[in-house]
Amino acid sequence: MIHITKSNRVPVGLADFPEMVERKGKGHPDSVADECAEACSRALTKYYIENFDTYFHHNVDKAAYVAGQAAPEFGGGKILQPQEFEIIGRAIDQAIVGGKLVPIPVRTICRSAIQDVFKYTFRNIDLEKHVIIDARTKSGSIDLTGLYNQERNGQDHIPLANDTSFGVGFAPFSSTDQMVYDVETYLNSSKFKDLCPASGEDIKVMGLRNGKDIEITLCNAMVSKYVNDRSEYINAVAQVQEAALKVCDGLKEDHSVKVSVNTGDIIEKDIMFLTITGTSAEAGDDGQVGRGNRANGLITPGRVQTLEAAAGKNSNNHIGKLYSLMSNRAARSIIKELKGDVVECQIRIVSQIGHPINQPWMGDIELIPAANVNFDVVSKRAKEILQAELDDYLTLRKELAEGTVKVW
Amino acid sequence: MIHITKSNRVPVGLADFPEMVERKGKGHPDSVADECAEACSRALTKYYIENFDTYFHHNVDKAAYVAGQAAPEFGGGKILQPQEFEIIGRAIDQAIVGGKLVPIPVRTICRSAIQDVFKYTFRNIDLEKHVIIDARTKSGSIDLTGLYNQERNGQDHIPLANDTSFGVGFAPFSSTDQMVYDVETYLNSSKFKDLCPASGEDIKVMGLRNGKDIEITLCNAMVSKYVNDRSEYINAVAQVQEAALKVCDGLKEDHSVKVSVNTGDIIEKDIMFLTITGTSAEAGDDGQVGRGNRANGLITPGRVQTLEAAAGKNSNNHIGKLYSLMSNRAARSIIKELKGDVVECQIRIVSQIGHPINQPWMGDIELIPAANVNFDVVSKRAKEILQAELDDYLTLRKELAEGTVKVW
Amino acid sequence: MIHITKSNRVPVGLADFPEMVERKGKGHPDSVADECAEACSRALTKYYIENFDTYFHHNVDKAAYVAGQAAPEFGGGKILQPQEFEIIGRAIDQAIVGGKLVPIPVRTICRSAIQDVFKYTFRNIDLEKHVIIDARTKSGSIDLTGLYNQERNGQDHIPLANDTSFGVGFAPFSSTDQMVYDVETYLNSSKFKDLCPASGEDIKVMGLRNGKDIEITLCNAMVSKYVNDRSEYINAVAQVQEAALKVCDGLKEDHSVKVSVNTGDIIEKDIMFLTITGTSAEAGDDGQVGRGNRANGLITPGRVQTLEAAAGKNSNNHIGKLYSLMSNRAARSIIKELKGDVVECQIRIVSQIGHPINQPWMGDIELIPAANVNFDVVSKRAKEILQAELDDYLTLRKELAEGTVKVW
Amino acid sequence: MIHITKSNRVPVGLADFPEMVERKGKGHPDSVADECAEACSRALTKYYIENFDTYFHHNVDKAAYVAGQAAPEFGGGKILQPQEFEIIGRAIDQAIVGGKLVPIPVRTICRSAIQDVFKYTFRNIDLEKHVIIDARTKSGSIDLTGLYNQERNGQDHIPLANDTSFGVGFAPFSSTDQMVYDVETYLNSSKFKDLCPASGEDIKVMGLRNGKDIEITLCNAMVSKYVNDRSEYINAVAQVQEAALKVCDGLKEDHSVKVSVNTGDIIEKDIMFLTITGTSAEAGDDGQVGRGNRANGLITPGRVQTLEAAAGKNSNNHIGKLYSLMSNRAARSIIKELKGDVVECQIRIVSQIGHPINQPWMGDIELIPAANVNFDVVSKRAKEILQAELDDYLTLRKELAEGTVKVW
Repeated sequence: MIHITKSNRVPVGLADFPEMVERKGKGHPDSVADECAEACSRALTKYYIENFDTYFHHNVDKAAYVAGQAAPEFGGGKILQPQEFEIIGRAIDQAIVGGKLVPIPVRTICRSAIQDVFKYTFRNIDLEKHVIIDARTKSGSIDLTGLYNQERNGQDHIPLANDTSFGVGFAPFSSTDQMVYDVETYLNSSKFKDLCPASGEDIKVMGLRNGKDIEITLCNAMVSKYVNDRSEYINAVAQVQEAALKVCDGLKEDHSVKVSVNTGDIIEKDIMFLTITGTSAEAGDDGQVGRGNRANGLITPGRVQTLEAAAGKNSNNHIGKLYSLMSNRAARSIIKELKGDVVECQIRIVSQIGHPINQPWMGDIELIPAANVNFDVVSKRAKEILQAELDDYLTLRKELAEGTVKVW
Repeated sequence: MIHITKSNRVPVGLADFPEMVERKGKGHPDSVADECAEACSRALTKYYIENFDTYFHHNVDKAAYVAGQAAPEFGGGKILQPQEFEIIGRAIDQAIVGGKLVPIPVRTICRSAIQDVFKYTFRNIDLEKHVIIDARTKSGSIDLTGLYNQERNGQDHIPLANDTSFGVGFAPFSSTDQMVYDVETYLNSSKFKDLCPASGEDIKVMGLRNGKDIEITLCNAMVSKYVNDRSEYINAVAQVQEAALKVCDGLKEDHSVKVSVNTGDIIEKDIMFLTITGTSAEAGDDGQVGRGNRANGLITPGRVQTLEAAAGKNSNNHIGKLYSLMSNRAARSIIKELKGDVVECQIRIVSQIGHPINQPWMGDIELIPAANVNFDVVSKRAKEILQAELDDYLTLRKELAEGTVKVW
Repeated sequence: MIHITKSNRVPVGLADFPEMVERKGKGHPDSVADECAEACSRALTKYYIENFDTYFHHNVDKAAYVAGQAAPEFGGGKILQPQEFEIIGRAIDQAIVGGKLVPIPVRTICRSAIQDVFKYTFRNIDLEKHVIIDARTKSGSIDLTGLYNQERNGQDHIPLANDTSFGVGFAPFSSTDQMVYDVETYLNSSKFKDLCPASGEDIKVMGLRNGKDIEITLCNAMVSKYVNDRSEYINAVAQVQEAALKVCDGLKEDHSVKVSVNTGDIIEKDIMFLTITGTSAEAGDDGQVGRGNRANGLITPGRVQTLEAAAGKNSNNHIGKLYSLMSNRAARSIIKELKGDVVECQIRIVSQIGHPINQPWMGDIELIPAANVNFDVVSKRAKEILQAELDDYLTLRKELAEGTVKVW
Repeated sequence: MIHITKSNRVPVGLADFPEMVERKGKGHPDSVADECAEACSRALTKYYIENFDTYFHHNVDKAAYVAGQAAPEFGGGKILQPQEFEIIGRAIDQAIVGGKLVPIPVRTICRSAIQDVFKYTFRNIDLEKHVIIDARTKSGSIDLTGLYNQERNGQDHIPLANDTSFGVGFAPFSSTDQMVYDVETYLNSSKFKDLCPASGEDIKVMGLRNGKDIEITLCNAMVSKYVNDRSEYINAVAQVQEAALKVCDGLKEDHSVKVSVNTGDIIEKDIMFLTITGTSAEAGDDGQVGRGNRANGLITPGRVQTLEAAAGKNSNNHIGKLYSLMSNRAARSIIKELKGDVVECQIRIVSQIGHPINQPWMGDIELIPAANVNFDVVSKRAKEILQAELDDYLTLRKELAEGTVKVW
């Protein structure tokens, strides 16, 4: 049952109270943990499908990403202790086929998936020297596994929700949201890294809007081998700042924007955010799954958001993961299609354990309509779009398996 | 600068859209992780103060709580593999005093603190047989540590915020909030455990309010040695259900309440939530810090909430932790003092890195006033209460060090 | 085929060249490792027999005994980091019975066995605070396992040798041998520990005989909580020395004996062998299986000895372990029975892979006869005794399973 | 004081009793453990010298080499779990220089050294996929470290023995010794590996001489990707056998030689020694330091041999390591120089703790002279050669640091 709520509140991006938005970049320890968890889930799913033609239960949604110890210095430095990444969770690791035990190389699959993440995420990490990677997974406890197994047949049908859970999404991004998102995306693009190799992938962007003033504060781990002295450091920081400002300029509309980079630095005391590998995980900053960006890529403490950690959950029937993604997808579709008519859309869906995924226990679409809109027409269409998204579960599952949907 | 927002929205507990509230009980793997992290922080703080008379930097806010493997059966069963708990983070582990190196037994301190948590949390865990406990901590990276060190002098003054961060709190609890909170608290009390020893400490309570109907769904790991057959299991579950209902009855006002326990069970197939130790961490359910209850003890996806993991952060100047607690404390004080005048209060505070903790960059108190209230008077008092809470930082820090404040 | 070699060499205990003998006491890290490995093998065997009525393959003959870090001081001190003990090897951990998988709690069994060893070995170790114990075992590779499995039937018959291997033993102990053995045994007895609680269980005794002069050098870790100052330390060391001397007095015959204790000490610089727990494993001294005493309890570099690590090997058909024990048992029996006729006896046996254990490929009994002995009679009897020992394999296996035979 | 013993015993290679000799090849888990330990010691020494111009204390002579799990099959197969190698021991990891703490990257140094060993040892191991490498080292306990530190000054002088210890060596190799040694060396040469890529580096060679018959039994892990079916396996085994025979032919003199390869195989049941990586460590066979070849490259249970594990000990003053090497070097020099006059030479040296390394407490050179030799002349020269070797300590230490001396 899907409700529509007509709201007359001021859209978040225009509200009086300061708006606060954060995005942890792809090299931030928490994002790395999320990406690794999701990569493990993808790799396991792939293996299960290829070898057994079915989904097997797994939840690899925890990790111990233990920071290393490093002594960076201008032009280089020393890694004193490697980082350690261990994925934690459970995954079916043996199947009985025709009375015979078939082992499934879960540890190998996960290690390999994690190694790939480090390779495509970081330009300046030497996997062999800087990181120790492992997987510690176990089999599931009976009750959930039992429930899951009942679903084994009919993989092309919509499976049942594995839990009572909650998904929430919204659209569109406010100006601050978009700036935070795009700044990180641009600074972590190949294009920018080629221009500014000193900029490491560990970037945290925070946006604060107060009235019409937006302040973007970002921390960017600098890569020591491209920074030979203080002045090169200062230049690199300036280059990051300018690039961020330029991204913001294209989005700011009537806001004024200020960008600050690495505000904790005290250059004259040689306190700088200098790293060998481009991530603070080399020295002291541990990471965990589910502690970073929400499924839409942002942390928005001023909005309703779930604690659900989507990364690493199995994409077949983990309702928390699926509803987190579906609610955001539907909200974006509604705004896209009804651009002139709806100013802001927020969707919440609650599942019912044991019921098909596309039949939520309750759904709510909050719409802030534009002036003079026929709300009934808009409401009807919004409902249809959400239901279509729910019904289109197989597409989402497929995209998750292929890795074309981001979960953080 | 503290704003007051006068709101005319319907209080959460009366709103149309379903309200959803969750509390992970003290034996849930995520709560155990939180409690262990906080206990480590407390123990380190105690050691630092006793031995060096000052706060030292530490953040032990990550953990790898790796589930074991178990084969429970009626009347007992076998632990196949132990649970493993490792706290992760960084903590000062050597001091140079008068040119000499003084080692600090961080690993011993943390292991001991974690062992204590397991002892006071679980009735049916044998530390020696069922759990492996360790600590993997490192020293901090230079820039944050540098900032922290500047604060070393003048421990009796208000320290500076270590980050730009966000705290949010609210009061009062809605009926659903209160039921969820109180049901867990009662079911995990000594009183109830004495009455129903089969009820393990791993309890997850979820409350869903739809209009006037509140549905409480709870999972409770049953302890196999007190459950000798199916009928004893059924009886124990019924006992839990009745106890929960009774708690709810005292809080329900004009709501109707339904309580379901262990809905995933299929008794006739022997699919039950049976454990040897009282927690699902014995078999398959891993835990992490910061993935469970927020600082006020609840998960409220229908409300504004931060992702901040308070547990394990140092209580001296970690602004995310402190503001999470202060905003809730202030909201509760406001509601307590202005009971008749304010229906609901929500507080948000944003810090400014490098500024004293009691001078937030921005604060907002959203008040839903009762009818016919002099809002100016109420507003003024609410501001004063929040500022008093901010200024009373030393009390909060002391209570955190002593463990009299809960952070999950 | 068993040879007899008649030797006219001077018995080891009378030879010109210095005799050197060593025994690592029960609290020495290498002995602890041996004892834990053997205890794990015993516990696994017991479980296999009780649950499956047969021997299952296992070799738990490796370990990582990683030393801790400690700061002992007079009257106490601090454990900075715990010791870690991990047994390594392989052991059958699941059986397929009637088409169903039966898990075997190998990790739990081994952890429990190791904990017991620490408890009965050390008086001053707090298992919870001072040690982390784990087991990392895997299943076997196909070829040996295959060979082993063929042996499954007929457990009451003599199994086949699993390898080409070598056992060596001798009797009697020389005076130096006996002193070294008995000094450790006495100093580590309950009787002496009650008299001198400051004496820890980590004792290494070395005996050097040069002509008629025997020098016993021993290291004994002192327990700090029973040692409040330098003079108490000096007294405790003196007590150990006197006790050792007294043991030697009863064995010395025409030798002169000198005993030195903790010769590395430089008391005036506070360099002493002080520990909190009674073992050097608390701080820096790691241990391994098979690096300490041979199967007869001694290290005798002046004699023929194998490198075989008996501890932790399966007692069903591991030929290196069995022959090491059998050769010593037979030599001792020969000396016992033929006391007047044989001065020294050394036995070597070589197995043949795939042949019954009691049919070695080759055996040699070297006998140094007393004067005027009928060598043929003595030879015949010696052969019979060795063959009887070989044929009595089931008794040895049983005693190993029950733990009544020492392997280090 | 160096004794000379004139012996009239039959040389080992001609004795009646069966001679037994073993060599674990470079890819055998125990040899890998030895090589890694020694490589770590070398790398640490190098770092200490380069950065601090002195030797620092370390003993990295333990390891946990935990086997993986694999499912090899003709033409390939799957690694189910990686191997894990952890070096264990202690090493100075921070220096105080001018009041400032200088960290030493011990973990990084050791990991890198171990990785290099795997690379130059194995042709078919993918470091990233197949192995997890780590180092767990701690600082030393006070008494030994104290002793060691006293030696810091005067690095060009002969340091004092750190212990009472024992070294033993002999020359020449008997025919069986030489065959065992040379067979492994040739089979593990680049030349042979190019000819027979299916032959993995894990080779164990055992030689048994009975009278004039020498039986060489060798196990060689075959590499699955070069073996596509049973007949290719049979061919590869035959190729190994022929190559071994050919090596033996050049050494056999008047012996008859038989070579058997992989005698545990039962081809028709598909029980074969097939591996993916060329070592049994991929599946079930763990390794340890000091459990394989002695310092001269052989295991000779028929001869006097020490249990000393030379690998990983510090080469500056670890007397057990140094004397093991010196006694063999001196014996070889004596035989080389006095070829016609001495048939066999065995050397034993005992150190005295606290005395210079070149002044052993006692030494013994056992010589079996050729007929009609002037024994006094020969004795005098033998003594001089041994003393010269002892005095030439600095050359040995340098060669150890450079890795030009083998210790296993």
